[in-house]
Amino acid sequence: MTDEKVTISKGLEGIFIADTTLCKIDGTNGKLWYRGYPIEVLADKSNYEEVAFLLLYGHLPNRHEMDVFDARLKDEREVSSEIKEIIKMYSGKAHPNDVLRTCVSALSTYDDDMSDRSKEANLERAVKLIAKLPTIIAMIGRTMRGKGFVEPDRSLSHSSNFLYMLTGKRPDKESAKLIDLMFILHAEHGSNASTFSTLVTGSTLADTYSAVVAGIATLRGPLHGGADEAALNMMKAIGEPDNTEKYIEDALAGKQRIMGFGHRVYKAYDPRAKVVYKYLQSFMKTTTDPQIEKLLEIAIRAEKLMEEKLSKTKGIWPNIDFFSGPLYTAMDIPSDLFTPIFAASRMAGWTAHLFEYWENNRLFRPLDNYVGKLDVEYVPIDKRQ
Amino acid sequence: MTDEKVTISKGLEGIFIADTTLCKIDGTNGKLWYRGYPIEVLADKSNYEEVAFLLLYGHLPNRHEMDVFDARLKDEREVSSEIKEIIKMYSGKAHPNDVLRTCVSALSTYDDDMSDRSKEANLERAVKLIAKLPTIIAMIGRTMRGKGFVEPDRSLSHSSNFLYMLTGKRPDKESAKLIDLMFILHAEHGSNASTFSTLVTGSTLADTYSAVVAGIATLRGPLHGGADEAALNMMKAIGEPDNTEKYIEDALAGKQRIMGFGHRVYKAYDPRAKVVYKYLQSFMKTTTDPQIEKLLEIAIRAEKLMEEKLSKTKGIWPNIDFFSGPLYTAMDIPSDLFTPIFAASRMAGWTAHLFEYWENNRLFRPLDNYVGKLDVEYVPIDKRQ
Repeated sequence: MTDEKVTISKGLEGIFIADTTLCKIDGTNGKLWYRGYPIEVLADKSNYEEVAFLLLYGHLPNRHEMDVFDARLKDEREVSSEIKEIIKMYSGKAHPNDVLRTCVSALSTYDDDMSDRSKEANLERAVKLIAKLPTIIAMIGRTMRGKGFVEPDRSLSHSSNFLYMLTGKRPDKESAKLIDLMFILHAEHGSNASTFSTLVTGSTLADTYSAVVAGIATLRGPLHGGADEAALNMMKAIGEPDNTEKYIEDALAGKQRIMGFGHRVYKAYDPRAKVVYKYLQSFMKTTTDPQIEKLLEIAIRAEKLMEEKLSKTKGIWPNIDFFSGPLYTAMDIPSDLFTPIFAASRMAGWTAHLFEYWENNRLFRPLDNYVGKLDVEYVPIDKRQ
Repeated sequence: MTDEKVTISKGLEGIFIADTTLCKIDGTNGKLWYRGYPIEVLADKSNYEEVAFLLLYGHLPNRHEMDVFDARLKDEREVSSEIKEIIKMYSGKAHPNDVLRTCVSALSTYDDDMSDRSKEANLERAVKLIAKLPTIIAMIGRTMRGKGFVEPDRSLSHSSNFLYMLTGKRPDKESAKLIDLMFILHAEHGSNASTFSTLVTGSTLADTYSAVVAGIATLRGPLHGGADEAALNMMKAIGEPDNTEKYIEDALAGKQRIMGFGHRVYKAYDPRAKVVYKYLQSFMKTTTDPQIEKLLEIAIRAEKLMEEKLSKTKGIWPNIDFFSGPLYTAMDIPSDLFTPIFAASRMAGWTAHLFEYWENNRLFRPLDNYVGKLDVEYVPIDKRQ
């Protein structure tokens, strides 16, 4: 035992772990940049393939670089028969994120040379992972619904192809933009728990697969990856748009947490939520499904009420998870796939952070503070109480 | 961008993340306690089942508690046909630690109720994980050698049964003590990278399986889980005991790192290494295999030389990884199973830390320091260089 005063850095709040050129979050003013590009600009003008390239390579691709990268992603959409076997064995029995974790863990089997730790080889691994996750997730989703696999379509973009493999329908223009937007907005977000977990695993010089498996495992927790599903469940519980205000008022009076509001980092409107909200409003004008219309209206009314009531006084604003659920639902995506889709999008950020960290690697080895007894006497088992 | 000075806590060195009553490491004096019991006492008097109980429940079991716990472990040694299928598909194609990670990821499928986060349900999960890992590892090892599975034997202890399932032979008294010793000594070691990784994943309130999958993934790195294999490879490269001194002198003159020496935490003789060294010396007297004898002699002579040359001046002492390899080899365990066995032993420590952390949980969300540009202009793709 020691008499020194020990300070516990709970949750590592306020502790800086590394320099980065990947992502800047200005939580006070509600701003976010990937590699220096404001998120709003990327959301409007870019697409997921380009954003993934930007994160991994540090610059926006020129036409030739984009063509090569895009072709590689398309080449790698297929998965092996063993992976399909695992998907069939477990989909519907385990949570989709667990099946995804198992499949991604198995992907290391297909690596040409695990001992090659060059930047080039690792970037190639990132391409494979980014390309295969949507396929795996779509196959899990279809198996859960008792449907057969849909083969990837090279004529479709990364995110549109995902939606096609999941639903069996080629998405219309609005849905294609929306799903791509969700992929872009979830691609990266600093050293949050799953990215941090990827770095902790990677800091032992474990391989890329090991590191991202840890990331996928970390997303499973409701404090990180499950908030969009929880927010959607709240909206479903509200049921009718006219119930929205009473439900929220009651929840606030009972001091319940309103899912999808507040964020550890943002003390202002989550800039990703702002982007999604804008698209949600325009999407609402095109939808013809009354159930979807209801859900979107509940989201909009809840946002309005919360902003009036709380934003100014307590600084509690909606975060991206609040709007994701209704939009995914509008795209016919079941709620237990939200977390796996988060993983598929974030794969670009995880791998980019990992490779950046490896350039200046240091094993994570924090301390814990022992507060128990020492030199306890070992009593033989038959003399124990 | 900010003008504030930011301090990066590289590798989180010196940062305390939590209070614990699990393990005290006194790196300066080379001492280690599990729940207040000196490691030397547990190594001599206890067994792995008892140590696992101690770590999970906080006290040594009385006879009744031990009987119940031991029976539960024995009940849970079997794995499902799907897990066996995964083992057959991947053993020999992927690293055994990767196959283990994939299998453990799949184990969540068999959980009765994943939504049950009670302490009781989690302890039950720990029992299942501790019980099944040796089975999975033994099956991977046998498949890699082209041999059929060996069914678990209830008459054998946890660690002896593992050795039996791997080798097909019931271990003699010396081997039984040695393998149990290795399990005990690897059961727990504070907030090292794999345990920390388990906590990071668990801090999102992800489930026990997700958290330990991250732990297994983190062990994969040569800076954490692979040091015993690397040390063994060095001894094999030395080949003959009489080459030992020259090899070490040459390596030191070339400023190469001698694997298995030095430790981030211990600035004295690793107390676990001391225990193993003692048993290794007595084991040496009983072995009749000349190859094993050579390997053990190389280890002993390297230790002697390093201690004479470096311990006093630079404080570089052997750590447990230095002696593990020759001993595992003596027990006919192939070197690529060392890391999976580490995982099997550490499962007790991982789960015990996880459950302790959950009693006072806080999401890990450190910061990174953005050093790139901001508000970079988005140039359309065809105008990019």
